[in-house]
Amino acid sequence: MAGGHEARAASADCGQAADPLGLRLQAVRARTMALAAGLSDADASAQSMPDASPAKWHLAHTSWFFETFVLRDHVPGYTPYDPRWAFLFNSYYEAEGARMARPRRGLLTRPSLDEVRAYRAAVDAALDAALPALDEAARALIALGCEHEEQHQELLLTDLLHLFAQNPLAPAAFAAEPRRPSAAPAPLAWVEGRSGAVEIGHDGAGFAFDCEGPRHVQWLVPHALADRPITNGEWRAFVEDGGYRTASLWLADGWAWVQAEGIVAPAYWRQDEAGGWTRRFGLDGLDLMDLAAPVRHISYYEADAFARWAGARLPTEAEWESAAAGLDPTRGTLLDQAGPVRPRPAAAGAGLRQMFGDVWEWTGSAYLPHPGFRPAEGAVGEYNGKFMSGQFVLKGGSCATPRGHVRASYRNFFYPHQRWQFTGVRLAKDL
Amino acid sequence: MAGGHEARAASADCGQAADPLGLRLQAVRARTMALAAGLSDADASAQSMPDASPAKWHLAHTSWFFETFVLRDHVPGYTPYDPRWAFLFNSYYEAEGARMARPRRGLLTRPSLDEVRAYRAAVDAALDAALPALDEAARALIALGCEHEEQHQELLLTDLLHLFAQNPLAPAAFAAEPRRPSAAPAPLAWVEGRSGAVEIGHDGAGFAFDCEGPRHVQWLVPHALADRPITNGEWRAFVEDGGYRTASLWLADGWAWVQAEGIVAPAYWRQDEAGGWTRRFGLDGLDLMDLAAPVRHISYYEADAFARWAGARLPTEAEWESAAAGLDPTRGTLLDQAGPVRPRPAAAGAGLRQMFGDVWEWTGSAYLPHPGFRPAEGAVGEYNGKFMSGQFVLKGGSCATPRGHVRASYRNFFYPHQRWQFTGVRLAKDL
Amino acid sequence: MAGGHEARAASADCGQAADPLGLRLQAVRARTMALAAGLSDADASAQSMPDASPAKWHLAHTSWFFETFVLRDHVPGYTPYDPRWAFLFNSYYEAEGARMARPRRGLLTRPSLDEVRAYRAAVDAALDAALPALDEAARALIALGCEHEEQHQELLLTDLLHLFAQNPLAPAAFAAEPRRPSAAPAPLAWVEGRSGAVEIGHDGAGFAFDCEGPRHVQWLVPHALADRPITNGEWRAFVEDGGYRTASLWLADGWAWVQAEGIVAPAYWRQDEAGGWTRRFGLDGLDLMDLAAPVRHISYYEADAFARWAGARLPTEAEWESAAAGLDPTRGTLLDQAGPVRPRPAAAGAGLRQMFGDVWEWTGSAYLPHPGFRPAEGAVGEYNGKFMSGQFVLKGGSCATPRGHVRASYRNFFYPHQRWQFTGVRLAKDL
Amino acid sequence: MAGGHEARAASADCGQAADPLGLRLQAVRARTMALAAGLSDADASAQSMPDASPAKWHLAHTSWFFETFVLRDHVPGYTPYDPRWAFLFNSYYEAEGARMARPRRGLLTRPSLDEVRAYRAAVDAALDAALPALDEAARALIALGCEHEEQHQELLLTDLLHLFAQNPLAPAAFAAEPRRPSAAPAPLAWVEGRSGAVEIGHDGAGFAFDCEGPRHVQWLVPHALADRPITNGEWRAFVEDGGYRTASLWLADGWAWVQAEGIVAPAYWRQDEAGGWTRRFGLDGLDLMDLAAPVRHISYYEADAFARWAGARLPTEAEWESAAAGLDPTRGTLLDQAGPVRPRPAAAGAGLRQMFGDVWEWTGSAYLPHPGFRPAEGAVGEYNGKFMSGQFVLKGGSCATPRGHVRASYRNFFYPHQRWQFTGVRLAKDL
Repeated sequence: MAGGHEARAASADCGQAADPLGLRLQAVRARTMALAAGLSDADASAQSMPDASPAKWHLAHTSWFFETFVLRDHVPGYTPYDPRWAFLFNSYYEAEGARMARPRRGLLTRPSLDEVRAYRAAVDAALDAALPALDEAARALIALGCEHEEQHQELLLTDLLHLFAQNPLAPAAFAAEPRRPSAAPAPLAWVEGRSGAVEIGHDGAGFAFDCEGPRHVQWLVPHALADRPITNGEWRAFVEDGGYRTASLWLADGWAWVQAEGIVAPAYWRQDEAGGWTRRFGLDGLDLMDLAAPVRHISYYEADAFARWAGARLPTEAEWESAAAGLDPTRGTLLDQAGPVRPRPAAAGAGLRQMFGDVWEWTGSAYLPHPGFRPAEGAVGEYNGKFMSGQFVLKGGSCATPRGHVRASYRNFFYPHQRWQFTGVRLAKDL
Repeated sequence: MAGGHEARAASADCGQAADPLGLRLQAVRARTMALAAGLSDADASAQSMPDASPAKWHLAHTSWFFETFVLRDHVPGYTPYDPRWAFLFNSYYEAEGARMARPRRGLLTRPSLDEVRAYRAAVDAALDAALPALDEAARALIALGCEHEEQHQELLLTDLLHLFAQNPLAPAAFAAEPRRPSAAPAPLAWVEGRSGAVEIGHDGAGFAFDCEGPRHVQWLVPHALADRPITNGEWRAFVEDGGYRTASLWLADGWAWVQAEGIVAPAYWRQDEAGGWTRRFGLDGLDLMDLAAPVRHISYYEADAFARWAGARLPTEAEWESAAAGLDPTRGTLLDQAGPVRPRPAAAGAGLRQMFGDVWEWTGSAYLPHPGFRPAEGAVGEYNGKFMSGQFVLKGGSCATPRGHVRASYRNFFYPHQRWQFTGVRLAKDL
Repeated sequence: MAGGHEARAASADCGQAADPLGLRLQAVRARTMALAAGLSDADASAQSMPDASPAKWHLAHTSWFFETFVLRDHVPGYTPYDPRWAFLFNSYYEAEGARMARPRRGLLTRPSLDEVRAYRAAVDAALDAALPALDEAARALIALGCEHEEQHQELLLTDLLHLFAQNPLAPAAFAAEPRRPSAAPAPLAWVEGRSGAVEIGHDGAGFAFDCEGPRHVQWLVPHALADRPITNGEWRAFVEDGGYRTASLWLADGWAWVQAEGIVAPAYWRQDEAGGWTRRFGLDGLDLMDLAAPVRHISYYEADAFARWAGARLPTEAEWESAAAGLDPTRGTLLDQAGPVRPRPAAAGAGLRQMFGDVWEWTGSAYLPHPGFRPAEGAVGEYNGKFMSGQFVLKGGSCATPRGHVRASYRNFFYPHQRWQFTGVRLAKDL
Repeated sequence: MAGGHEARAASADCGQAADPLGLRLQAVRARTMALAAGLSDADASAQSMPDASPAKWHLAHTSWFFETFVLRDHVPGYTPYDPRWAFLFNSYYEAEGARMARPRRGLLTRPSLDEVRAYRAAVDAALDAALPALDEAARALIALGCEHEEQHQELLLTDLLHLFAQNPLAPAAFAAEPRRPSAAPAPLAWVEGRSGAVEIGHDGAGFAFDCEGPRHVQWLVPHALADRPITNGEWRAFVEDGGYRTASLWLADGWAWVQAEGIVAPAYWRQDEAGGWTRRFGLDGLDLMDLAAPVRHISYYEADAFARWAGARLPTEAEWESAAAGLDPTRGTLLDQAGPVRPRPAAAGAGLRQMFGDVWEWTGSAYLPHPGFRPAEGAVGEYNGKFMSGQFVLKGGSCATPRGHVRASYRNFFYPHQRWQFTGVRLAKDL
C-alpha cells in the first residue's frame, strides 16, 4: 500500500514538477502520511472523545474532501473510489448529505488503515492525473483542500495526544528528543500596541479562509501586550496560590466547569508521587515539565481566570492582529515534520516573541463574522461561518500548526472549555 | 400580612415623601407585590425549569439583596430576619457563601408565600427606618437594589409564563384584555445608521450597571436597520417556507438544538386542530396570534436563521445603540403595572419604531466587556462581569421591562438557545 | 370547600349507615383528607423527585380512580367533573389514554389544592348518591378503590417526608410527640420456620390484589427468622465498621449505586456537628435517633449488604409469609390517623415480633407472578402485573400503612435502590 | 508472535499429552485464538458499547485470570509479565484492586493485538511449565479458568457482532456459508413437564459454577413447554400484528424501553427497501432472514411481551431445568470452531428439541441464589453471586456457546433489556 503511494509520489515528481500547486499538494499529502506513519491500525481507529477523531478518519476525510469537491465536481467521468465512504468520511457538510454521527467514528474498524492509505493513494493519483486540465475554480479548491488538510494535520496530532493520554501505559506517539535544561525565562515585559483606528482582516493577497475577511477598521484603546506567553512556571504559581479554588477569579460558566469536571491544573499536567506538579504528558510520553516553556492545554476559562489573577486581561483579536501585522508568520516553533512537537521557551531579547507558533493564544474576542463577511459559495461555504456562536478566537498557531499555514488574520476558534489543542495565553492590559 | 405591608407603605408616605429614593423604593417594591398578587402559594413556589425561578423566590431574593447589602452592611445593630434564609435566597453571589442549588428552588414550599410577604414587609420597614441616616454608599446600594428588583420583575413574569405554559389547563396569569383586530403592518423599511467612529456605552450620567461602561469608540460600517421588529406574520412565512427544516440557514449549534429539541416554531406558538399556527399562549392564556405584532420568544439561533433566510443579518450592539441614542427610552410598550403584557403592532409612520419596549432585540454581538470595563467592588461586583462568555447581547427592553429601567446603553444577555424572555428580532443589512 | 365536604360526610352518615362499604369508603376518604389537612397549597403541589408525587396529585388521582372506574363506567348519565383532568390525574393506566408525564406533576399549580378538595367532595357525593343502586361489579371496584386509596395514603406520607427532607429548614409535617427514652432492645433471637412444602398466596377469602394469588405450594429449606427487625443501633455498628466502604459486602449493582450516589448511611440519618450519626429527619422534623427502633429508609442493596456483614441473609417471601400466616395483621404500629408516624422499638418478649407494621421488610425474592397468576380484567388489570421485573418483594407493612390494609399475602415491591418508603430489614439464616 | 505460540502448542503436545487438564487448557486457549484470527488490530481494539468489550481485551483478560489466580498465587517465583497490565485487564474483581473503567476499554490501543498474543503465549508457556507441579487447588483454578475463558469466547463473538453491526459497511466477521433453503417448521407442539416436588441445581458431579448449586427442591405446577423455540417467522407475525406498538402486552419497564429506544424489531433485523423485515445482520454479514430458524437477539421484555401476545408465558428456571435433566447437553448447535455461527431450524420430529444450543432461552425466573448458596472463597468468589439483582436467568446455551460448556443446571443471566447475546424464547403454559 505504502509502496504504491510512494510510487505515485515518485512519478508525480517527473510530470508536474513545474506546477507549484502540484508540489504543494504532494508535500501536504506526504506530511499527513508521515504524521501517521508510526500508528498501528488500532491507534489510528480509536476515538477518545466526541471532540476528537481517529487518525484514520483524518486521513480519509481529507481525501474525501479532494475527491468530492475536486474530482467529483470537476473531473468528467470520475468514478467514486467507494460510493459508501462519503457517509463515513463527510465531517459536517449538511449539503453533502447524511453522515456517520461524530461520536461514533471510533466504531469504524473497517475500512482498515491500509485500505484508507490505498484510498489516499488513489485520490492522489487521480488528482495528479487531473491537475493539468483543471480550471482555476478547481485549482482553488485544491489549494483550499491543502489548507484544509493542514488543519487536520494539527488535529491529528492533538487527537492522538488526547487518545494516548487516556492510556495508563502513557505511550509516546514519537520518540522523545534529548532533553536540554532550559534557562529561566526573563521576566514578562510589556509592549505597547497601536491605538485608535486600525485595520485588520485579510487584505486579499494570498490564500485565506472566508472568515478572515473582509479587511475592516477596528478602534483600539491604548493597551500593551505581554512580550511572550505565560510559562509553566508562572502557571504553577497560580495553581499554588489556589487559583483553581478561588471562585472570584472565574467566569460563572468557568467556575461551574471547574467544579463539575474537577479541574485542578492544565490538561496534561501530571503529579509526581509527592503531589507536586512536576510532570506532563506529551507526544513524547511522560516527562518532566519544562517550567520555562509556555503553558499549554488550557481552556479559555483558565486563561481568563489566570489573567484576572495576574491583574491583566486577554488581548482582543484586533489588538493581537494589529500587533502581529509586521511579523513573519513562518518563523517560530511550527510544524515542519513528524515528531514530538512541543512549545519552546522564549528566546532572549526584547519585543514581541512567539506570536506565531508554540501555542495558540486565546483572545477575549468571540468568534463572530467580521463586518461584511460573506461565506464562500456552495458546500465548502459551510466551512467557517456556521460555527459563529459560543466560541472564542485564538491566534498565532502552535507547535503543531504546519509552517506556512498561519498568518496574522488567521482565526482559530474553540469553545471556552476546550483545551486539547496546544492552547496558551498571552496577557494584555490597558494603558 | 398584606395589611401590614400596606400600613407600612401608608406611613412611609407621610414621613419620607420628600426623599425621591424612598419614593422610588416604595414604587418598585409595591409593583413586585402587585405582579404576584394573583398567585396562589403553589403558583408562587413551583419552578418549571432550571433557568426559571419560583415567583416566591424572586420576592424573597430581591428582599435578601436589600437586607444583605444595605441593612446588614450599613445599618448598625441590624438583626437578620431569619439567618437561615440567606442560604435559600442568595442567587449566585459566591462571596456571600453557600446557597440552595438553583434547580432545587422549587422544593422550597416553606417558607410560605405569606411568610415571604411578611419578610418583604419587614425589610421594607427596616429600610424606611434606616433611610434618613444612610450615607451615599448605602443609598447607591438601594438604587442598585431597585434596578435589581426591576430585573426580577421581568423575570417573575417570564418565569410565570413558562410555568403556566407547562400546564395542560393553560391558565391565564392575568385576565385577558378585550381583543381588537390589528391592522396589517406596513412593509418593512430600512433606516440608514451612522458609520465610522461612534461612541457607545454609558456616559456616566444617571444610573447604569457596571457592564454598560465605559463609554468608548466603535467603528461602524455603512448599514441600515429595519424600522420595526419582525412580526408574527412574517415569521409564519419563514415557518411555512421550511425555515426550521433547512440546515443551511442555521448555525451549527443552532441546527443541533433544533434537531435535539424538536423545535418547529417560536416557544409559545400553538397549533390549531387543523395544524395551522394560529394561536399562542401568553400571560392572558391561550388566544389567537396577532400577526401584526412582533414575534416573541425566539432564540438567537432562530433570529440568526431568520435573518439569513431574509437575506439580512442581525444588528451589532454598537449599530443598535448608536441608532437608539437619540430616542426616548421611556416611551413604548413597557411594563407599568401588573397585567397581561404583550408586544403591540408597530404604529404607523416612518423611521425607527419600537426600539424600546415590546421585545428584546437580539444583536449579533457577544456579551463581552467594553474596553476598559472594571467590575464594581465587593460582592455586588459579581453582578454582571462573571457572565461574560457564551451569551449574546439584547437591547431595548420588552413589554415586561419596567418603564424607566432600560436605556440605550443597557445590555441584556442570554445564551443563544434561551427564549423564555420576550425576545424578538430587528434586521440589519450592510449598505 | 372543606365545609361542603364535611356536610356531605354528615348527610352520608344518615342515609347509608347500614352499608359497610359506604362506611368504609367514608372512613378511607376522610383519612386521606386528614393526612393532608396541615399542608399548604405549595406543600401539596411540589414534587421532590420523579418517584414521588405531590400530595395534591394523590388527592386527585385517588378520586379520578373512583370517578373513572365506578362513576363513569357504572353510573348511567354521569358527567365528568372536568374532562380535562383525566389527563392530569391518570397515573399509569395506558388503557385510559395519554397522561401528564410523571416527572412533571410538580408543575401543576392549577387546579389548586382547594379545587382538588372540591373535586374530592363532588366525587364523594356522587358515590354516595350512586351507592344504593350499584351492582356487585361496581361495589367491588369501590372496594378496590378503597384499597388503592390506602396505598396512596402511605405514599402521600412518604412523598411528603421526602419533600420536606430537601428543605434546609427541616420543616415538620406533623407536630412531634413527646419523646420518651427507649430501653435497649433485647439481643436478636432466632425463630425456626416451617420447612418442606408450604402453601402461600391469597386463599380467596376477603379482599386481595390480583398479584397475591393464587395460593400455591413452595418448598422451604430449614431456616430461621430473626425475632425482630434490625435496629438503628445495630445498623450504626455496621456503618462504624466501614460497611458502606467495603465492596465485598455489596452486590455489584449496589456497590455502583453507593459509589455514584455517595451513600454513607440510611436516607434520613443526619450527622451532628461532631460527625456522629445521632439524628434523623422524620415526619416530626429533625430529632435524635432512637437507637432501639427499627432502622428505616434503607434500600435492598443496603439490606442485603447488612445481612452479608451479619453472616445472615434476607428471608424469602415464602419464608416470611409462612411465618406470618398465624399472626394478626391488624396489630402493630400501623397507620390509624394523621400524625408523625414512626416505627417503635420491639416489645419485650419472645417469638416473632413486629412482623406487621413498623417497617416494610425487604425479602430476597423478586417480584414475579405466583404460579398461575392471572391479572384482573380491564384497565384495573394494569394494576400489579405490569411491574413484574426488576423489583423485590417487601412484606408486612409499615407505620405508614393503614391498619387493616396489609395481610400475610400482601406483596409490596420496589426497585433495589429505592428507600424513601419506611423500609427495614429482618434477617434470616439457614439451619 | 503467533509462531511462538504455535511452537508452544506443539511442544506441549509432546510433554503433557497424558494430562487431560493440560489438553483441555490447550484446546480452550487455541479456540480463543482461532476466533480472533481474522481480526485486525483495530477490530480487536474497539468497544461498541459499555456492555461489550474489545476482542483484544477478552484475549488479555482471560490470560490475566490464569496469570493472577494460578501463576501468581500458586507458582513460586513467578514474575508478572507486565505488572501494569493488571490494571488494564482486571474485569470486576474488587479484591484485585483498581482497574480501567469498563466503558473506556476501547481506548487501549496499546498494548497491541500482537503484544496481547505474545502475552497469551507467555502465560500458556508458564502454565505448561507449571502444570506438572500444581496441586489440586491450583488445578481446580485452571479448570475454572477454562470455563471462564469459554464464557469469554461467547462474549468475544457477540461483542464482535455488535461492533460490526454499527458499521455502515456491514462487514462479515467470518465468510458466509452457502445458504440452503429451510423447510417451514412444523407447528409448535406442547410437551408436558413434571409437576410437584422436583430437584434442580448442580448435584456436585463434574464442574459447575458456584451459583448452580446446591441441589434443592422446587415445587412445580402442572405445565407444558413448547417443543422448540419461537422462529423468526412466528416473531414476524407478532411484529406485523403491531406487537411493538401495543402497550398492554408489555411490562411497564419494557414499554418505557421500547418507547425510549425506538425498538420495533429484534436487534439485528434489517428492513429491505420496501420496508419489509426480510434481512438480518450476523457474523456472516447481511443476509436474508431464515424464517424457520429460532428468533435471536431479543430482550426479556420482548420475550415476555411475545409470550403474552401468544397467550402463553415464559418457563420458570425450574421447569426448564427439570425438563432438560435427561437430555444430552453436548448435542445441538453449539460452538465447535471459529465460523459464522447461527441458530438452525428445528429438526423434524416430536418432543423437546433445541433445548441446548441455538439460542439462550429466557426464563421468567430472576437470577437469585439457590437456597443454601455459598459463594466460592477468595477473589474468584466474586464471580457470580454479586450479580444477583435485577437480572433474569437464561438456560441452554446458544450457537456461540462452546460445546461442553453448558449443562442443565447452568445459569446464564442478563438484564431484561439486554439482547446482544444469541437470546431467544421457548414458550410455556399452565395445564
